[in-house]
Amino acid sequence: MSIVAGLPIPCKAAAVAWEAGKPLIIQDVEVAPPQAMEVRVKIKYTSLCRTDLYYWEAKGQTPLFPRIFGHEAAGIVESVGEGVEDLDVGDHVLPVFTGECGDCRHCKSDTSNMCDLLRINPTRGVMLADGKSRFSINGAPINHFLGTSTFSQYTVVHSGCVAKINPLAPLDKVCILSCGISTGLGAALNVAKPKKGSSVAVFGLGAVGLAAVEGARIAGASRIIGVDRNPKRFEEAKKFGVTDFVNFNEQDRPIQEIIAEMTNGGVDRSIECTGNINAMISAFECVHDGWGVAVLVGVPNKDAVFMTKPINVLNERTLKGTFFGNYKPRSDLPSVVDMYMNKELELEKFITHRVPLKEINKAFEYMVKGEGLRCIISMED
Amino acid sequence: MSIVAGLPIPCKAAAVAWEAGKPLIIQDVEVAPPQAMEVRVKIKYTSLCRTDLYYWEAKGQTPLFPRIFGHEAAGIVESVGEGVEDLDVGDHVLPVFTGECGDCRHCKSDTSNMCDLLRINPTRGVMLADGKSRFSINGAPINHFLGTSTFSQYTVVHSGCVAKINPLAPLDKVCILSCGISTGLGAALNVAKPKKGSSVAVFGLGAVGLAAVEGARIAGASRIIGVDRNPKRFEEAKKFGVTDFVNFNEQDRPIQEIIAEMTNGGVDRSIECTGNINAMISAFECVHDGWGVAVLVGVPNKDAVFMTKPINVLNERTLKGTFFGNYKPRSDLPSVVDMYMNKELELEKFITHRVPLKEINKAFEYMVKGEGLRCIISMED
Repeated sequence: MSIVAGLPIPCKAAAVAWEAGKPLIIQDVEVAPPQAMEVRVKIKYTSLCRTDLYYWEAKGQTPLFPRIFGHEAAGIVESVGEGVEDLDVGDHVLPVFTGECGDCRHCKSDTSNMCDLLRINPTRGVMLADGKSRFSINGAPINHFLGTSTFSQYTVVHSGCVAKINPLAPLDKVCILSCGISTGLGAALNVAKPKKGSSVAVFGLGAVGLAAVEGARIAGASRIIGVDRNPKRFEEAKKFGVTDFVNFNEQDRPIQEIIAEMTNGGVDRSIECTGNINAMISAFECVHDGWGVAVLVGVPNKDAVFMTKPINVLNERTLKGTFFGNYKPRSDLPSVVDMYMNKELELEKFITHRVPLKEINKAFEYMVKGEGLRCIISMED
Repeated sequence: MSIVAGLPIPCKAAAVAWEAGKPLIIQDVEVAPPQAMEVRVKIKYTSLCRTDLYYWEAKGQTPLFPRIFGHEAAGIVESVGEGVEDLDVGDHVLPVFTGECGDCRHCKSDTSNMCDLLRINPTRGVMLADGKSRFSINGAPINHFLGTSTFSQYTVVHSGCVAKINPLAPLDKVCILSCGISTGLGAALNVAKPKKGSSVAVFGLGAVGLAAVEGARIAGASRIIGVDRNPKRFEEAKKFGVTDFVNFNEQDRPIQEIIAEMTNGGVDRSIECTGNINAMISAFECVHDGWGVAVLVGVPNKDAVFMTKPINVLNERTLKGTFFGNYKPRSDLPSVVDMYMNKELELEKFITHRVPLKEINKAFEYMVKGEGLRCIISMED
């Protein structure tokens, strides 16, 4: 138990977003002790994911500021609230933006990970238990983000949103498993499930798409077709096992026709990671009839409509959606960390930048410019 | 070997369709001997399926007449052509409108049944081998239908479109397994795969839909919601295990909302057997997020477009299409016949009418009026 357990921690450094699209400010924040079923976590490393950027830009949403963003991270439990039985001080953990209560129909389902109690809620800025924030500056509350707010040296998270992992795992690497990489990886391994020697098309070669490629590689796919608007990404993607590249912008015919031609009728599996509605439709229609499975990962504009001729479905194609790679955070993430420890899963190639907390705004700049994949932010003092 | 093997059979009775929508004429037809890889089958019983009606009415298609319809039937092999090794004279068989060559990628797939060589082709009126018909009247050819043309006392079928079944099975009952009933049954058992105690919605309570209900019952579903425009069908459907009825026409809100309310968020599985595009969309959107699977069976108008918000997919719903219940005709139908022989599957309740061949037009009348489910046509002299 830390010496400040049960007391507020005057946290020396958190990155606070005060306005949409404006640089975060590094400042002192007070972090209240965890309430019932909550834990307070000392964040060691966090990384920037596109969802942080999206809500920080606050385009097309009701803005919620001031707010502490961050949801891809790794840390160590500093103290636990009342009733928390499966986590102890000192446990190495990944906080996760969605949870696993263990009791609801989703948690009891063998396929769903969309917990009724702790499902992602990007518009809530407070903790579930009491509707209050655990962050304050001079007594004024600061909003949480996704129940994780990992851009702070200490944060408070519901214990159902915390995965206890192998204490030997390097936190500066496995931190990226708490969102994007697991999302893409799980879309391939848990949902698309390509067979050894099969063909897979991945739409979008950002971090999530390349994690899907990594999943396809691990599953033994022999042909991995990457689709992106940016041909520069192909060089990077080759390192992940992408064998063919299709430029989404440079085609005079639908991408699904081109992929069908390349593959004698269609790929065995496709995974859509862009959220572009046309890419979603192409991803579905490019899988082979009889056995093809298309998996949607990317989240589109809320007005988008998925459209296809019913015959594309009737000819024995399958369309599936996935959320966080169908991983149940507490039950499944420890084994994903172990995949890395066993050298099955390669994480280093996703990490293209590193900055200390005080330079966190650089991570935003890299992502806005589309530079690199993941920027690790070190929270050390 | 029959005494006429290798010779044309002057078949005493076939029902020939000469014009779209006009009564079939019972007349003498000459049936040529089977060519390489073909078999000639003495049809004992056939039944009328909606697909016969659809092509007989010839609305919205290029008409192909004169033609011998019929594709749901049971018979006995009369003679076999060159190269046929797995069928013998005297074998009890179901001719099937789609085939299984055993060699193509679909036949080798563990999920597809959409054989590249022998896939359904409703516009072809001739045999695959030589592009000729095996039926003639005074030397003038009569078109085949779906490679089966079972409205004839003798017919010629590709050996890859013939399932050899248990010789003890009553042909006047298992004949209905060669199309509609297997289509609905397999949609439930092979594709939707409802778990014991689960909820299933079936759209359309005709023969195919009720066969899906029968599959759901066999799988142990505890709640089966039937959706149809005709409330009279509910009484009949109760015999099959339908527990709740929703009238597609009498709702002021989308059916998917009503079903979600009835089932605390959605059914576990849905099976769409009408081909109505709005029913298809409702069938998809009425399954529960996290684990729901919707299966499309019904074939829509060719201009129809399936539309849904991507979030309905992303929330871990699955959409699958199926063709002939995903049964591979030769490999799988014998076991479906055995399910009936073992009293797992009940077929009697589908058989609502019986007529001799000379009254085959009555079967068309029953179907046009929506009376009953299956009318068995006895081909005996």
